This record gives sequence, C-alpha cells and structure tokens, in this order.
Amino acid sequence: MLGSTYGTLTTDPRRARTIACGEQPAPAVHSRADDLDVSGRPLHREVPDLDRFFRPESMAVIGASDAEGRPNTGITRQLITWAERVGARLHPVHPTRESVFGIPCAPNVAALPETVDLAVLLVSDPLPVIEELAASKVKFAVAFASGFAETGEEGAAAQSSLAEAVGRSGLRLLGPNTNLNAFSEFREDLDGPAIALITQSGHQGRPLYTLQELGVRLSHWAPTGNEADLETADFISYFAERPEVGAIACYVEGLKDGRGFLLAADRAARNGVPVVAVKVGRTETGARMAASHTGKLTGADTVVDAAMRQFGVIRVDGLDELQDTSALLARARPPRADGVAVYSISGGTGAHFADLATRAGLTLPQLSEAKRQELHQWIPDYLNVANPIDNGGHPVGDWRGPKIIDAILDDPSIGVLICPITGPFPPMSDKLAKDLVAAAERTDKLVCVVWGSPLGTEDAYRETLLGSSRVATFRTFGNCITAVRAYLDHHRFTAAYRSPFTDAPRTPSPSFRKAQALMRPGRQLSEHAAKQLLRAYGIRVPREQLVTSAAAAVRAAGQVGYPVVMKASGARLAHKSDLGLVKVGLTSASQVRDAYRELTDIARYEGLDLDGVLVCQMVERGVEMVVGVTQDDLFGPTVTVGLGGVLVEVLRDTAVRVPPFAEDQARAMLDELRGRPLLDGVRGAPPVDLDALVEVVLRVQRMALELGDELAELDINPLMVLPRGQGAVALDALAVCH
Amino acid sequence: MLGSTYGTLTTDPRRARTIACGEQPAPAVHSRADDLDVSGRPLHREVPDLDRFFRPESMAVIGASDAEGRPNTGITRQLITWAERVGARLHPVHPTRESVFGIPCAPNVAALPETVDLAVLLVSDPLPVIEELAASKVKFAVAFASGFAETGEEGAAAQSSLAEAVGRSGLRLLGPNTNLNAFSEFREDLDGPAIALITQSGHQGRPLYTLQELGVRLSHWAPTGNEADLETADFISYFAERPEVGAIACYVEGLKDGRGFLLAADRAARNGVPVVAVKVGRTETGARMAASHTGKLTGADTVVDAAMRQFGVIRVDGLDELQDTSALLARARPPRADGVAVYSISGGTGAHFADLATRAGLTLPQLSEAKRQELHQWIPDYLNVANPIDNGGHPVGDWRGPKIIDAILDDPSIGVLICPITGPFPPMSDKLAKDLVAAAERTDKLVCVVWGSPLGTEDAYRETLLGSSRVATFRTFGNCITAVRAYLDHHRFTAAYRSPFTDAPRTPSPSFRKAQALMRPGRQLSEHAAKQLLRAYGIRVPREQLVTSAAAAVRAAGQVGYPVVMKASGARLAHKSDLGLVKVGLTSASQVRDAYRELTDIARYEGLDLDGVLVCQMVERGVEMVVGVTQDDLFGPTVTVGLGGVLVEVLRDTAVRVPPFAEDQARAMLDELRGRPLLDGVRGAPPVDLDALVEVVLRVQRMALELGDELAELDINPLMVLPRGQGAVALDALAVCH
Repeated sequence: MLGSTYGTLTTDPRRARTIACGEQPAPAVHSRADDLDVSGRPLHREVPDLDRFFRPESMAVIGASDAEGRPNTGITRQLITWAERVGARLHPVHPTRESVFGIPCAPNVAALPETVDLAVLLVSDPLPVIEELAASKVKFAVAFASGFAETGEEGAAAQSSLAEAVGRSGLRLLGPNTNLNAFSEFREDLDGPAIALITQSGHQGRPLYTLQELGVRLSHWAPTGNEADLETADFISYFAERPEVGAIACYVEGLKDGRGFLLAADRAARNGVPVVAVKVGRTETGARMAASHTGKLTGADTVVDAAMRQFGVIRVDGLDELQDTSALLARARPPRADGVAVYSISGGTGAHFADLATRAGLTLPQLSEAKRQELHQWIPDYLNVANPIDNGGHPVGDWRGPKIIDAILDDPSIGVLICPITGPFPPMSDKLAKDLVAAAERTDKLVCVVWGSPLGTEDAYRETLLGSSRVATFRTFGNCITAVRAYLDHHRFTAAYRSPFTDAPRTPSPSFRKAQALMRPGRQLSEHAAKQLLRAYGIRVPREQLVTSAAAAVRAAGQVGYPVVMKASGARLAHKSDLGLVKVGLTSASQVRDAYRELTDIARYEGLDLDGVLVCQMVERGVEMVVGVTQDDLFGPTVTVGLGGVLVEVLRDTAVRVPPFAEDQARAMLDELRGRPLLDGVRGAPPVDLDALVEVVLRVQRMALELGDELAELDINPLMVLPRGQGAVALDALAVCH
Repeated sequence: MLGSTYGTLTTDPRRARTIACGEQPAPAVHSRADDLDVSGRPLHREVPDLDRFFRPESMAVIGASDAEGRPNTGITRQLITWAERVGARLHPVHPTRESVFGIPCAPNVAALPETVDLAVLLVSDPLPVIEELAASKVKFAVAFASGFAETGEEGAAAQSSLAEAVGRSGLRLLGPNTNLNAFSEFREDLDGPAIALITQSGHQGRPLYTLQELGVRLSHWAPTGNEADLETADFISYFAERPEVGAIACYVEGLKDGRGFLLAADRAARNGVPVVAVKVGRTETGARMAASHTGKLTGADTVVDAAMRQFGVIRVDGLDELQDTSALLARARPPRADGVAVYSISGGTGAHFADLATRAGLTLPQLSEAKRQELHQWIPDYLNVANPIDNGGHPVGDWRGPKIIDAILDDPSIGVLICPITGPFPPMSDKLAKDLVAAAERTDKLVCVVWGSPLGTEDAYRETLLGSSRVATFRTFGNCITAVRAYLDHHRFTAAYRSPFTDAPRTPSPSFRKAQALMRPGRQLSEHAAKQLLRAYGIRVPREQLVTSAAAAVRAAGQVGYPVVMKASGARLAHKSDLGLVKVGLTSASQVRDAYRELTDIARYEGLDLDGVLVCQMVERGVEMVVGVTQDDLFGPTVTVGLGGVLVEVLRDTAVRVPPFAEDQARAMLDELRGRPLLDGVRGAPPVDLDALVEVVLRVQRMALELGDELAELDINPLMVLPRGQGAVALDALAVCH
C-alpha cells in the first residue's frame, strides 16, 4: 500500500520540482531547552507518549465516506475494521452526511461527541483542520495527503506551514504523505519479543510486515511519510521503551534532524534494544532519488554510516537482511559465548560455510581434544569434528543425532550453533530439523539453521523450523552470517556502551575565549593564526615566530633553534609546498636570509598577500596524519582523522565521527584506517605516540563543539605523530571561519 | 545425497590424517605433447567425449545387489530406474548371484554379454576392477568408494595407485568418493538453454538441482568427487561444447591442475558459455577445511581469483548467488544495451534499488526528455520517471501498465528492465507481474523481477513469474544485482575475448640463453646479477658498475656520471637500506671514496659476504612500483605488480596475473590498484610512462615463462616509473633460483 495510492488527495501536480538541499523546514526537536551541549544541541530528547496513538480509545475520521467508488470509502471501511479490532470508538466526520456505514456522522470536529485520542485526516488539505483539532484537544492526527515536500519547493513551503500549525497546536501529527500501514493488523497469536517497524516508504515495509506469516511477531508499524512532525527518531525512542519490542527495524531515506536521531539511538543503546536500519544513500544517485522521494536530506553517507556505528545502529543493505537480522535480534537471548560452531551433514557444506563466516569476522573456535573425542563416539574418526563438525550424514538418522547436537551446545566456547542444510534430503534433513528444534528447547544458546532449498515449501522448513520460536531459520548462508554477526556485535556493543551525552560538555572551556578572539568571520585564517587556535586548545605546534624582515628572521631562527623551516604566511595560502613557499632544513643565518628573500620574491611574483614569513622549529620524523573538522548538513561539526600524504590524498583513508564521542571512539577511528599498521611501526620504525594522537582528536572535537558553526572547516595537515612518549605536533593547519 | 552416505564402501578409517599441501597425485592433463608453451605447460586440452558417459547405451553395475538391508541394494535399484529412463541396457555383475532384481547377473566383467559404455563400481576397492574393465574395453567407470585422498596420506597413496591404473587402462573414471548425483533425473518438459552442474560435494549441488522445480532447466550433473581421473576442467570443456548448455555452474573446493582449469575456462570463454563458480578458500580456514574434505589444493586465493577473472569465470560466494546467476546467464539473450531501467510502483523502492545497483557498478541512464514526456502521458507529472521510474502505483492497474513497460523497453539506451516488487499487494502486483510476463514475450531485452515477499507462495510468484521462461525472477535486490552485473560483464568480456593461449610463446626468446647463464640453482642472486637478468630481458636498469676498491669506485662514478648511488652487493643481502648499506646523492670523488670505506666497514662489522660495491647512476624521481614473480602451487609462475613504498608494504596494494596474458590484462592489473591515481599524477605530478610500465610487466612475464620453475622468486623493488615518454628503470632487484 502506497502513500500515493490515495491519489485523489494529491494537491497541485505543478508542485513537481526538485527540492534543493537544506531547504526543508527546520526540525522541531522536542527537547528540554535547559539541557544543551556547548554547541547548543540538545542532550536530551523527550520520549513522546504514543500509547494512545497506537491504541486510541476513540478516534475520528475526517472526510469519512461510504459513497461507492470514492477512494475514501475503502479507507473508511478499513479504519472501521481496525477500530473494532483495537476497541476504539470511531466517529466519522463529514460536513453533509448524516451517517457513514451506519455510524452517526459529525459535521465538524467541534461537533464530535467526545474528545478523541486520534483523528485520521482524509482531506486533501490538512492545514485548516489542525486548529480545529487543537481546539478540541485531540492528541494525535494522521494526514494521508500527499503533494508536500516530496513534490518540490511549493510543497515544501506548504509542509512548513503545516509543521508550524502543528507546533502551535500541541497535538502530534503523523504525515503528511503517509498511509494505512499504521492501521495494519498484527497477529495476536505470536508471543515473545516483537519487531517494531518504522518506514519512510510504506511499500518498503511490506516484506517485513509479511514476516508475520512466517511466525515472526510484529508489534507496531510507523509509516512516517514526510515527517512534518513525528519522525523516525520519535518512534525509535518510543519503541525502545516498550517492553514487548525486541528489535526496531527501520527503512530510512533521509533524516530530519541528525542530533534527534542520535539521541533516539542512544536511548535504544542504553536500553539494549537493537535498531536495524536500511538507509538509502550509499551513492549519489541513491541519495538524490531518496531526497526527491521524501523531500528529506540523506546526509553525507560516510557520516551517516559512522554515526550509526557510534550508537550501535546496525546498518544493512537489503530488505531481506533487514528482515533476517531484526528477526534474530528481536528473539535471541544474549549470547553465552562468542564462538560459533558449524555443524553439517556434509564436509563441503561445513567448509563453505566456515569460509564465508570466518571472512565475515565470526570466530569458529577449534574444539578441544576432549570434545572431539566425545564427538567421535558418534561420528566416524576420519571425519573432521574440530569445527566445522562434519557428521558424514549417517549419525543424523538415529539416536546419535541429538547427542551430537547437545554435546556441541554444551561446549563452553560455543555460543551459537549453525547448521546449514543446503538441500533437503528428507530421510536426513527432516530428522535433523526436528532434533535441532528439540535441542533448542533444552539450551539457552542460539541455534540457527540455513534452509538452502530454493523452494521453501518443504514441511521440514514450513512446519518444523518456522513452527519453532527457538530456532532462527535463514534461507541463505550470507543472511545467516550477517545476522549472527550483528547479534554478537550488538551484545558486545551494548555491554560496553556508555552514553557520550552523559559527559558531553555543557559549558565552554577556558580555551574558548582565546579561540573566539582569533576567529575572523567569513575568512580563512593564516597558518600562524590557525596554529594559535590549536594552541588555544592545548594542541602542540612547533616553536615558531612570524617575522616581516630578513633580520627578524635570523633573530627568530636563533630563538627557535637551528635547523629551521621557513614558510610564507598569509590568509589565503594553500598548497604552499607546490608553490615553493616552504623551505626546510635551514642551518645558518645566511640560508635564513636567502630563504626570506626567496619566499617574499615568489609571493610578490605570484601576487600573494603575505602577513609575513614563519620561522619554525624543524620537527623530527614521525608519521604524518591529518585531523580535521567539517560541517555536515545533518549532524553539524564532524571530526575526521586520516593518514597523511598519499594515503589520504589518493586512497581517502580516513575515519569520521560525529560529536560527542569519548576516547574509545577516538581509538576506534584509528582502527578503521587501512594504513593503521603504520602507527604501530613498519620496517623497523618505532610505534607512534597513540595517546597523544587520541588526545589531539579529542581536543579538536572540543574545539569543534565549542566553536560550532563558527568554524566552517579545520584541517591539520600534517599532524606529525612522534614515537611513543614524544607527543604529536601540528606542522600546518588551515582554518576557515563561517 | 552425500558421498559418505554409502558408508559400507569406506575403507580403513585409520586413514584419517590431514593431507599435506602438494602431496596429492600428479595431475594427468590430457593434452597434445607437441603443443606446449615455453614453460612446458600445455596450450591445448582435449575435450573428452563424455556422450556415452552421460547417455550410455549399455552399463554394468559391479557389486549389484538386491539383498534386503544392503546399501548397494538401494543404489542398484536407483541405477536400474535411471537406466530405464535413459534407455541403457543394464547388466548386474556379482560373483555369486544368478540375477539381481530379476536381471541376469554376470559373475565378472569378462562374462558380460556385451562391451558396456559405463561401469558403476559399488565395490570398496575399485583398483582390481579397473584392469578387468580395460580388458573388456569399457569406456567409463564411476567409483563410489570413499577413503581415498580425503582421509589422509595412506588414502592419497591408494588414490595415486588408482589414478595410475586408470591412466594405463584407457578408460575414464569419475571418482572415487562420488555418488549417485550423476544418475539424477532431469525434467524433460523444460526447454531452452540449460545449466550444467559440476560439484565437488554432492550435498552442495542439491539446491541447484532443486531449481528444476522452479522451472529452471538442468541438463547434467557431474559430482566429481576426488577427481582421480576426470576432473572439473574435463566437464567444463565438455559442457562448453554441448549445444543445450547455456551456463556451467560449479561448486569447487580445490583444483587438481591450474593450467587444465584455465584451458577449460578458455574454451568456455571462446564459445561464449558462461562459467559461474563458488570456489571455497576465501580464508585460510576455508582453504584448510576444503583441502581436508576432498584432498585437493585450494591454491592461493588471490591467484585463483585473478585466474578466474582473466578467463571470465564468474566467481560468487553463496549457493543462492550461484543459482540465480547461472540461471540468468543460461537463459538470457545477449544484451542490446548496457543500460538498466528500474521501474517500480514506489519511489522508495526505486530509490533503494537504484542506490544498491549503482554502487554495484550498474548504469542507470537518465532517460531522455522525449522519453520522459512519453511516460508522463500515463504517469503523473510530479513523479520521477527519469530512471528509476516511479509510476506511483495507479497506472499499473489499468491499460496504462503495459504501455509504460513497452515504452521503457523501447528506449535504445536500455538493455535491462528491472522491476522490484518488494511486497505483494495483489490488486497491483498480480497485474504488474502479468504485464511484465506479456511484455517480455514481445521484446528481446531482458526483463527481471524481484519478488521481495519472504513467503514466495503467492500465485503471482509461483504461477505467473516462475511460469514464464522470459522473465528472470529473483527474491532479493542483492542477488538480482549480482546476476545482472555478471550478465552484462559476461557479454562484454566474451565480445572482447581473445585467447591468450593463441599467442603464448612456444620457444625461448634470445634472452633465455643469456638469462640461463646467470642462474645459480638454489641461490639468491646478488643485486648486480639480478639486474643483469632483467637487462637480458630488455628491462632498463641504471648504469652501474660493480667495483672492489675505492679507486675503482671513483673511476666508475666518473663513467656512470655524478651524482651516484652506492650500494653493497652480495648474494644474500636484503633490506640494504635498513642496514645502512645504501648511500645516495654522492657528488664527488671524495664522497665516493668515503662511501666505499663505510659500506665495506659495515659489511665487515655485520659479517656480510660482499661481491663488491655497486656504483649506480642516480635516477630522477618518478613513481615507485614493484613488479615480481612468485610460484603458485596450482598455477606455477605468477606475475605481480603493485605500488611501491608504504602502499605495497602496509596495504598490500597489488594485482596478480597467471601467464599467459596479453597487454590488455597487464593494463587491467594497473586499474585494479587502489593507488592507481598516482600513475596519472596527483597534486601536480606528471602522469607516468604507463606504456613502459606495461612493457616491463610483459617482459617479466616472458622471463617467468621461460625460466619456469628455475626462477623461484623475482622482486623488482622499486621499479622507478618516470614521467610519460621517459621509460621505467629497475633500481633494485632480488632474484632467487630454485
């Protein structure tokens, strides 16, 4: 069911223009104004109470109809069915009808017989209704109408007006451009933890909804549409507090507000509730499409990716992965151990699965000699049982089958048993499936089966495996491995999780005042000024002096200490080395004098405006890194670290984080770099001062938070990281003020 | 059905030891002895005539049984059924029985009433039977017995004896350790090109076999088992010649013989028959498991990967991808254009699919303004139809549906139409499926559907889509994208394919004699000797002289020309720079004299044996590369190229090829390097002499082929590649003789 199914509600099609980035209405984060970090971003996000939204006691349908052939008639009928199921009193509203489907009709909102919890708006322009609803103290509204931000500028303006009206009203709105998915039927006969679903495109949620037919419980579906008010983050934080929710599955095209999303993800992480998300925008094409579909920003994908990882959101690519991963995470108990045992009736299957699983980072511990002896009671000696465990087929068929499974599950190194059954061979696979289901009832460890048949119509699959709520059943090796990896990662992550918002700085540090004095709005700072900015935040820079004469240069060199480096300094200089504006290894007064002349000559020749020449201490060799700050449309300032030189320039070998983050994340950034081994020392080079590097990253973060939007860009390149114990020195820096 | 199902045939379980790499029996490549390349490897591989293997007119079952409870009884029964189906006369053979299942029994092979095409050996030791079969002129034998190379050293020895007996006999053997899969039933009611299946583990082939139930035609199944004689390559080359075979699907754990595999893949590439393979061994773990499962080498995975790519073999990871990709490639006609159109009833679905497809390298051409106008006749203006095409849902339901599909297919930039239907919504999806099936009948372009429902029991899927042989139907975005990418790549590859065996050198070049004179068996050559080896093959090295006195060094420097580099030279020196054994930028006689003294002092102090000191021309700056030769267990000499310095040392940024390969592959190697932009010049550096670099790679290949096993290892590091037009110079080289 599509938002655009209800085409009669669509407003002017001439609105079909592409929305420009950054033009959507300002986000309305519901936060406590007194709890902001030093950048002015909220540190807290209220969890909206959506109980009466999902389970209203009474509801109104504005624009209800029972006239043959009207689209609203079908919708009204479905809403009546839904209201009956959830036990809500439903009141149709229509200016001219006496009754709709036999239910008495109110002419307008004010005439409703009671204050309703929820109003469903089947009108093409929801704006005028909002004030009526507010006057009647309606808590929630749902607007199906399309033709807003997804259609272009004019639509975006209409959506802004709607959002403002909602903001004034006190009610909470779902939509516009949403659909009937929020009023879906959920199977009540399934128990255990459920998946709560959030989608920005109704159609994309359908496969997950359909999972119920395979026995996976769903508790909610929030089709957020254009998110004029209620957004993905609201539903994440609400679902993260619901006891019946075991996992939150999201299909996201764009985020309304970066910080709001992070605070919601933080709540889920603190509560140990896994969030699994497909986020469109891996490519420019995808980002563009998604933006034009829902009129929201997709954000720079590397930043979105990093932000999700920071807060434990599990990002997957396909809807099939979203299904399999969220179903596993919702239902599986925490792991007792990280080790995976692969058990199969074919050595080939075991080898193949082990190969892919190992590559994906799963650990298959080699079973102990004692355990192998135990297994060889039932499995012929010539078969490999060290893990993967190949039973050769036969033992599955008799009393040995359950004994082997129990013996594997009993091993303390094993937290997950995975049994890939690539093809059904009923004499074996039916019995094996039954044994696994029975064993899963006796253990608190995770038991997974991959049912590899392309049919999926076999009884062992449909009845035995899917009928069990204890065995996690997959259809492909790949999806099983992705889900198990996410399961182990999630529990490892939440066990170690500490909210970075707890310790986020609320007030400026003493550095801030010094830094502010150096800022030049709208300008790029000179290297010297940029380095003073770094120094204000306690980041080491070389001893250096800015001089404006050859004589002063010689004096400065004496004070700085030979050998020295000399560089032209000016507000708009970049790529100084390429222009010959850097002289290194100067060892005498005459060299310094010559260098001063040469640098100023080049600058004059090139027409460059210098504020002087820098005479700098020459720093011993270490590993060159880059550390920087950029502004992201969605998340504000972000901190980047990378390996310098060719690695960053050619391979873009960098890692990024969204503040606030703590030391653990600064260290994790370094582990993401492909050139990481350089930091530990290669070919006899000493390991670098990692602690100093991490400290620089954290100080840069602090600067980014305190200066906020004022600092459009910072680029320390290179930061020379010296051998362990010797610190790190920013040799050059570029800073652009907003 | 597993090889090890027939447990009574297994020989001594004490054989269960791990086979060491390289210990398997020597491969018996069936090749013309007069058609070898200069390395002594065959340039031609006979296609075995397996017609009577797959369709025997008569067959014998050695060890046939109808006694209750004997495993051979079940097998005999299945073979009788199979023989009836294919119209073969079946003769049981048993020393004591008069008849088996009512069929008269011969006491031994010699007593058979006719010369049979095929003998199936149900005996635990097939060896003694082989000679009897040969004496009776039997063409083919199948040995089910296990307990050979897969169980350890003793089994490997038994397999060697078996292979030798087969080699002498003139018959061709499938197995040992194979199974009944070769005698599977294939649906005869399906037409069009079929998949031929080759598996080294019967169980792993079962999902593909099951595809028949979804309407995909299979023509053959070769379960190759231990490959004592007939191997994967034999079946690839046979299937590549069969008119009914549209694609060859392989599950490979290890290869018996690298060159044999390449020749078979070459035949398939020349015939335009796609080969799709899962090859275990992505990780060390997987390789080890696979080796212990079938007793074959898995090969260095990067080399296997490169070899497959060179010959157009499409490597996939999962059995699901193997199914989907080979089914598509078997059945789809060659593409008319490379462009992909994504058409959906939801903007979200289109955006999501486009995002993943673009990332995977598919091209979604933006439709022309005229085409968009045409589509907007039927699709509302505010929806995006530039590609992806979002119809908003409604038009699907009426007469507009087929018009839209035809209009898209009619676009000359579009070769593939993909319609992702993430969830069934019968009023739309059923009609859409029918329209797509009908449109596919009217076009020669490829039409794909992704049926995203996790159920797969819906009529639109089972009846409409799977019932069509024209629409390629997938279950996940990922598998559809993988398969379509492989389809476009395959046709692009075969269109441009030229067999490298055609022009492979058969006789040594004049360089060979010079090179041979420099080889020192079992030793590492000195830098000077290694450079002479390079010079013999026309690879430029700096002007240099080997000197043994300070005075000679000064004379040499004068002749080489200042500035010079000086290096200690000796047979066992590596990492000379780290030891201080390299002096660069020497500009005067006195510096040369000092350097000579210093180098020899260090060598004396370190106890190093020098053959002298090299005085070398100093080479201007370029981009440092490495080019090398290593020996692969499976493929023999391989050629590697990489970016020098930190890129190769830390990031292992290298590309490898298996000879013979032509210039196009040498260029393709460079494109695989992540640091590739360095060759084109970054930050103002000039582009390098790519032609010279390619020429060095090809000359190194020639050397590797001519010296063959004699050259255990060659490492040019660095090869300084100068700016365009200026060539490339090998600054240092290391060569190890076998």
